[in-house]
Amino acid sequence: MTLLAQILDLAAMPEGNIPASARSMARFSLFDWLVCGRAGVDEPLAVILRNYIGAEGGLPVASVFGGTQVPARAAALVNGATSHALDYDDTHFGHVGHLSVGIYPAALAVGEALGASASELVDAFLIGAEASVRIGMVLGAGHYNRGFHQTATAGAFGATVAAGRLYGLTRDQMRMAIGLCATRASGLKSQFGTMGKPYNAGIAASNGVECAGLARAGFTSADDGLMGAQGFVLTHADVPHPSPPPGAFLFEDVKYKLHACCHGTHAMIEALAALKHAHNLTPERVASIHLRTGTRWLSVCDIKAPRTGLEVKFSYNWLAGMVLAGIPTASDRAYTDALAHDDLMADFATKITIEGDAAVTDMQAVGQVQLKDGGNLPFAYDLAARLPHTLLENRLRVKATGLIGAEGEQIWAVVAALDNLSAGDLGKRLR
Amino acid sequence: MTLLAQILDLAAMPEGNIPASARSMARFSLFDWLVCGRAGVDEPLAVILRNYIGAEGGLPVASVFGGTQVPARAAALVNGATSHALDYDDTHFGHVGHLSVGIYPAALAVGEALGASASELVDAFLIGAEASVRIGMVLGAGHYNRGFHQTATAGAFGATVAAGRLYGLTRDQMRMAIGLCATRASGLKSQFGTMGKPYNAGIAASNGVECAGLARAGFTSADDGLMGAQGFVLTHADVPHPSPPPGAFLFEDVKYKLHACCHGTHAMIEALAALKHAHNLTPERVASIHLRTGTRWLSVCDIKAPRTGLEVKFSYNWLAGMVLAGIPTASDRAYTDALAHDDLMADFATKITIEGDAAVTDMQAVGQVQLKDGGNLPFAYDLAARLPHTLLENRLRVKATGLIGAEGEQIWAVVAALDNLSAGDLGKRLR
Repeated sequence: MTLLAQILDLAAMPEGNIPASARSMARFSLFDWLVCGRAGVDEPLAVILRNYIGAEGGLPVASVFGGTQVPARAAALVNGATSHALDYDDTHFGHVGHLSVGIYPAALAVGEALGASASELVDAFLIGAEASVRIGMVLGAGHYNRGFHQTATAGAFGATVAAGRLYGLTRDQMRMAIGLCATRASGLKSQFGTMGKPYNAGIAASNGVECAGLARAGFTSADDGLMGAQGFVLTHADVPHPSPPPGAFLFEDVKYKLHACCHGTHAMIEALAALKHAHNLTPERVASIHLRTGTRWLSVCDIKAPRTGLEVKFSYNWLAGMVLAGIPTASDRAYTDALAHDDLMADFATKITIEGDAAVTDMQAVGQVQLKDGGNLPFAYDLAARLPHTLLENRLRVKATGLIGAEGEQIWAVVAALDNLSAGDLGKRLR
Repeated sequence: MTLLAQILDLAAMPEGNIPASARSMARFSLFDWLVCGRAGVDEPLAVILRNYIGAEGGLPVASVFGGTQVPARAAALVNGATSHALDYDDTHFGHVGHLSVGIYPAALAVGEALGASASELVDAFLIGAEASVRIGMVLGAGHYNRGFHQTATAGAFGATVAAGRLYGLTRDQMRMAIGLCATRASGLKSQFGTMGKPYNAGIAASNGVECAGLARAGFTSADDGLMGAQGFVLTHADVPHPSPPPGAFLFEDVKYKLHACCHGTHAMIEALAALKHAHNLTPERVASIHLRTGTRWLSVCDIKAPRTGLEVKFSYNWLAGMVLAGIPTASDRAYTDALAHDDLMADFATKITIEGDAAVTDMQAVGQVQLKDGGNLPFAYDLAARLPHTLLENRLRVKATGLIGAEGEQIWAVVAALDNLSAGDLGKRLR
């Protein structure tokens, strides 16, 4: 079965066949995405894009984070970028990228424009996200390492499938939409550290709305834009991976950022937080900490002496001290420049040693805390383990309140009541 | 000097430094582009896009071929695709692609929205086209052979530079615009034969307007989106070519399609037309024709027995007969299905033999006509030779009249009066 056929089958999956656990995760992603989007509205790139799109005018059919209503393509562009502005949104390690920020803006814009129900919108997102994960896995690490950004590239296909499902495309129209996306999708990692990174998420979302909309209107394209000769995969990946067999929703392994810092530090943070909780640890009681981490993180988040709040987000040494001192790593506001110059933090940082270990995955942290009283506390944490949904809900709601205050619980109430709402009701939460 | 520095210098070239001959060619391209766009308005893909964009609404600041006025980004998308619908627009063999269809729509949309003069618009196009040619040459044949479509990819950079020049971007803003284009540009050759091919030209134009507009509004991006690590060139070309030294306008080698058929047949058509004219040749006098052509064309335009009017456009045998019989190869209407089944054409086709010759370039035709009276007429033609401007003007005006009747001369009158017109005056010619 070709990748395209697999995606076309997926796109047409009857509502009743969608597993409840996958749908629950899609709702968590919706909540987290809405929170990240609302938290991003005052970021300069969000303001610039909102003004740019606002100046174009157009039929007000789709809501914009912090704005009014604009055409669907335009709303998708702004919302993708705005929700990725803080880089605090969900991640799928298999797909190598962020799912919600490229796909929910497309689903919401089209769903709102069409008057779809909120649950149809979530299902369309879920199907699009699953397509995106599978395409991202076929593109593989080679695509990422060459310089492409799956959030944008595989994300555009997910956005196309989500938008196309809401538009009710026939199988042939969906094939054309995917073909158009093959020539429209783009996005490079060399944008990291600039406004171009969140822009990539907006590009994915906007491309999806456009490609699905044109296919709906009768546009034609390549028969197999994915794996066909000179299709997207063969032009953008040197060694494509085999596509995983259809069946389970790989989307369910989506992960949420529960700390406002580099994802490579989260396993350590979870491990130390658990130790602190279990043993009532304080910095004063610790003699030393030794951490073993995935080797690729050493060039990413092992800044020994951060100079700014932003650099603290990439410093194992500082973050370990924050956890033990009880400074909330989930709150973006905690990462101040003053913290980078705090003497107590700098002193504690000297107690921590970091080692790359090829046997430790990118999602794991392993190590031990040596106490001054002679005790020794080993730790290990793996982000790959799925959290129970009740725990996940609690953590996401705490994150939301930390990010946007009381509005977090208002958004949770909307997501909890999803079955009785329209896409338009969700859209209102953006403004 | 980096490619980026070269492009930034070019983008800021004072009006007075632009060579008159290059500017003349840019005006011919404008004329030819307007004619192709007007000729394309009833093509299904143009109608679909016009309706799609029209349904979005928005501030009416930029004209659409066969439509009204819409926002600049939207107009660029529609006009790029509409003007490439017939695939009858200009080509640059060094750049490997079509220039006007990706770049003029961006220049016109922004020029019209800003109230620029028509001559500023043409200069911006010319600068953008020159940037596009140079980037296309660096991407090289490897980019094209991998499956990318320079018209769309290098075209987007040209559109960005043209739009950015009209917006009056500073050097740093232009650098950011090019960085954004690096993550926005896309386009695959596997769309050929579908509406996706003209869509690629629209994508280029629309991306250019968006990237220049966002940079103008303060968006940031990679410092060197072109040749930087994981920038556009290194991610999209396996073996980049060195960039040609700055100086002459390579754009001047742009070529116009003067026959409504595959470009690979044009050198033969010109050669035979010259013989017919010089010797008053008719099909009846010809015993045989032997043609040597560039080898790559054998898999493109050597259909021995075309079944449709479209296939006639890719048949040396039929086209040779059309030239000698005086059937106008410049007129799209000449390529009927009936012609493909014409007995006289089929009979004449048996007299023609085609040979691929590695010593013959893609732009050349070499061969001989054997006459029934024993005479022998050798021929040779090279499309690379620049036509005198007076001759070129004449040929383009004949082509225009063949394509769109009396409107062709009306458009010529506008282009001839360019120095006294605004971009808005040009825009009116689209509607």
